Amino acid sequence: MKQFISVEDVPGVPQMVDIALDYKKNPFKEKGLGENKTLGMIFLNPSLRTRLSTQVAARNLGMEVVVFNIDKEGWALEMNDGVVMNGNTTEHVKEAAAVMGQYFDILSIRTFPGLKNKEEDYTEKYINQFIKYAGKPVISLESATLHPLQSLTDAITIREQWNQPRKPKVVMTWAPHVKPLPQAVPNSFAQWMNAWDEVDFSIAHPEGYELDPKFSGNAKIYHNQQEAMEGADFVYVKNWSSYTDYGKILNSDPAWMVTNETLKNTSNAKVMHCLPVRRNVVIADEVLDGPQSIVIPEAGNRTWAAQAVISEILKNR
Amino acid sequence: MKQFISVEDVPGVPQMVDIALDYKKNPFKEKGLGENKTLGMIFLNPSLRTRLSTQVAARNLGMEVVVFNIDKEGWALEMNDGVVMNGNTTEHVKEAAAVMGQYFDILSIRTFPGLKNKEEDYTEKYINQFIKYAGKPVISLESATLHPLQSLTDAITIREQWNQPRKPKVVMTWAPHVKPLPQAVPNSFAQWMNAWDEVDFSIAHPEGYELDPKFSGNAKIYHNQQEAMEGADFVYVKNWSSYTDYGKILNSDPAWMVTNETLKNTSNAKVMHCLPVRRNVVIADEVLDGPQSIVIPEAGNRTWAAQAVISEILKNR
Amino acid sequence: MKQFISVEDVPGVPQMVDIALDYKKNPFKEKGLGENKTLGMIFLNPSLRTRLSTQVAARNLGMEVVVFNIDKEGWALEMNDGVVMNGNTTEHVKEAAAVMGQYFDILSIRTFPGLKNKEEDYTEKYINQFIKYAGKPVISLESATLHPLQSLTDAITIREQWNQPRKPKVVMTWAPHVKPLPQAVPNSFAQWMNAWDEVDFSIAHPEGYELDPKFSGNAKIYHNQQEAMEGADFVYVKNWSSYTDYGKILNSDPAWMVTNETLKNTSNAKVMHCLPVRRNVVIADEVLDGPQSIVIPEAGNRTWAAQAVISEILKNR
Repeated sequence: MKQFISVEDVPGVPQMVDIALDYKKNPFKEKGLGENKTLGMIFLNPSLRTRLSTQVAARNLGMEVVVFNIDKEGWALEMNDGVVMNGNTTEHVKEAAAVMGQYFDILSIRTFPGLKNKEEDYTEKYINQFIKYAGKPVISLESATLHPLQSLTDAITIREQWNQPRKPKVVMTWAPHVKPLPQAVPNSFAQWMNAWDEVDFSIAHPEGYELDPKFSGNAKIYHNQQEAMEGADFVYVKNWSSYTDYGKILNSDPAWMVTNETLKNTSNAKVMHCLPVRRNVVIADEVLDGPQSIVIPEAGNRTWAAQAVISEILKNR
Repeated sequence: MKQFISVEDVPGVPQMVDIALDYKKNPFKEKGLGENKTLGMIFLNPSLRTRLSTQVAARNLGMEVVVFNIDKEGWALEMNDGVVMNGNTTEHVKEAAAVMGQYFDILSIRTFPGLKNKEEDYTEKYINQFIKYAGKPVISLESATLHPLQSLTDAITIREQWNQPRKPKVVMTWAPHVKPLPQAVPNSFAQWMNAWDEVDFSIAHPEGYELDPKFSGNAKIYHNQQEAMEGADFVYVKNWSSYTDYGKILNSDPAWMVTNETLKNTSNAKVMHCLPVRRNVVIADEVLDGPQSIVIPEAGNRTWAAQAVISEILKNR
Repeated sequence: MKQFISVEDVPGVPQMVDIALDYKKNPFKEKGLGENKTLGMIFLNPSLRTRLSTQVAARNLGMEVVVFNIDKEGWALEMNDGVVMNGNTTEHVKEAAAVMGQYFDILSIRTFPGLKNKEEDYTEKYINQFIKYAGKPVISLESATLHPLQSLTDAITIREQWNQPRKPKVVMTWAPHVKPLPQAVPNSFAQWMNAWDEVDFSIAHPEGYELDPKFSGNAKIYHNQQEAMEGADFVYVKNWSSYTDYGKILNSDPAWMVTNETLKNTSNAKVMHCLPVRRNVVIADEVLDGPQSIVIPEAGNRTWAAQAVISEILKNR
């Protein structure tokens, strides 16, 4: 594996899930793999799970880790080519990425979308600038439109929690939120579920919240949340802002918040969320504190997803 | 040891002092103890000594360390149950603590009091929420009302600096400051000294600065600083804001600042302070720069206190 | 080596270059040298290259590293002696440095000049306070007037890129910038080049930009950039604010920006810069993206400079 930016970079979803679950059983089985190698973790945005689990994963493989909040500890980056840099940016990504490529064996980076300029965000301008200039493998710690470490985690969690011969019905449902959020998590979850033949995947959202079709693909779309829930085995909850009316909040109907009532016609569905989650806005306390929620073990699996990804890149296969 | 939040968690003060002084003689004697274990260090507030010494201590035991300024690098935490999270907090402690419990073998956390709501502070709401949801041993890096790593350090320092058969007279004296400070350090020092039969402990402070009796216990209280100083072997200097008139500054009399004059009737007392100290407000230059100050070796002992605590938790005894 | 603050601390420039280039060939040849030793890296200012490369260098030698953004994660420091600390500073450098000296085997620190008070900056008050009180070897990660890790890097880079018997002509040229910058990098580069008999060194700058003569020494000075460029083998580009009219911008003539035209009479000179560089203000895109720029491998050499310095201090020779 040369980079990890989307599902298209992996040899296959089931293979990655297998590798991750093997590490979960034996986290330190390849502690020499990363010896004398350093992972650089570059943050342009906040992070809890990704930041912490990826550090643990890299150390499990014997890698050194250097964490760098580039915006707060370093310099403001210029991402546009050809600019006369007489304004607020101090260093061009051409230099920043290339220099970090000199120090690190693998670069990982988190960069959120601005949610103002759809084209800029959807061409993944920022992470692609890093990839272009780093000269080393790049791992996405969440980019403008995708969050593949989260989606691999979600596949691991579904596989782990499912033990029936039939395919589980996995429903991703939009839920309300007070701020406009990126589409990265839902795009990515859709992309991975569509690429994975172990699940039956569908999406529920209000009208106007259609995701970019290149990610939602052939997933069945419901505009009626209750209809979507029928017989669901896994309910994946997530807010996102509109893709079509880009970055806007079009709906804040609290009826879309996931409660016990929402889940009543599911097949005793497990409830997933990438976290952080605003309680009683996105999901009700009764669900998060109840027996159907698997958000904590889901977050725990972030370590094994990261470890699988880093190991495959170190093995360069 | 299952957690380290107060003196009540330790098998005994003398035992902990012995363990710490053994590590001081041989810091690397148990470098394999923490192998493949990770300490998470979570900061909601600034820290110099605690932050740096605890990292060194954990590495001396072969542990991995992950430092996380959760407020700046992660998400704003909600600490109250049942809230509709449509305001400024992004993640509930229920998830944050539980998720970090998935990644770390031991969690340590620093969380200062608000000094507005006495009951909230004195029920140790914040650190208790972490303990409740982390599912892993928790070490206090200073909480709303206690700072046990500092107090263990202080006991180590007193033992180390004392070589007479009689018990030393240890006097904690309030001193002025320009800002309202927590009572955590004096509460904790009083709690540890009261629990330790190797010292004779008393407290000097202006009226209105009485500490919570559950911490000051049976210590003799003086409202006249000079009277308290008579024959003191150790003078422990610290400002705190009022407990009774909660969080208020009631007195800023510079006569309470510790100078050479203050110390004249002591038994050539050693002067201690947890640091940081505002020079010429809390303690005069002449004292801090003179032969009676032991604030630097005291701070140096933070490493051995932390190492004793982490090792006891790793040994789970 | 007892400290690394300026060229005066090293046994000799060629020796240090040799040591660094040996590490570049075999980064892990002395992985046991730093075992059970800890490097503290203290930042009062932003840093990318220094921060990242020094961490990698220390780990290559098996040292532990603790990074500390003291202003953001710790306390505001008082640097002046005798002050009544009733203002905005919380901890005196006397304590902060001495305490960190208790935890670390080597302290490294970055502290920029204020550019307001020439005497304060040029007596290197801040880093000298750290040296005075730390009680451990101190490495400059850039101080008010010098940046020796950068200059050693530059010497390494020149040696590496030069393979002719004659001495290379090295020209440092001032270039415009939108903000007043320290003189640390040009002072230091001049100091190292003057101390190194492998190069023929000169400086080009507009009138009013004379450096402190103790650093510029006997270097030939040109006020005409084109004249200086004649036959240059290395062009070292850097902006700085005025030393004589201290901290001021006296000139912003874009004709001093380095373009392909600027380089036309050089001996196909390699172009160097310490980075970050404001593109199309200091150096044109055409140069930075062209074949004459060596700024990226130059930045890569930061690791070997830091490794040479740390190893010499660890060896205490």
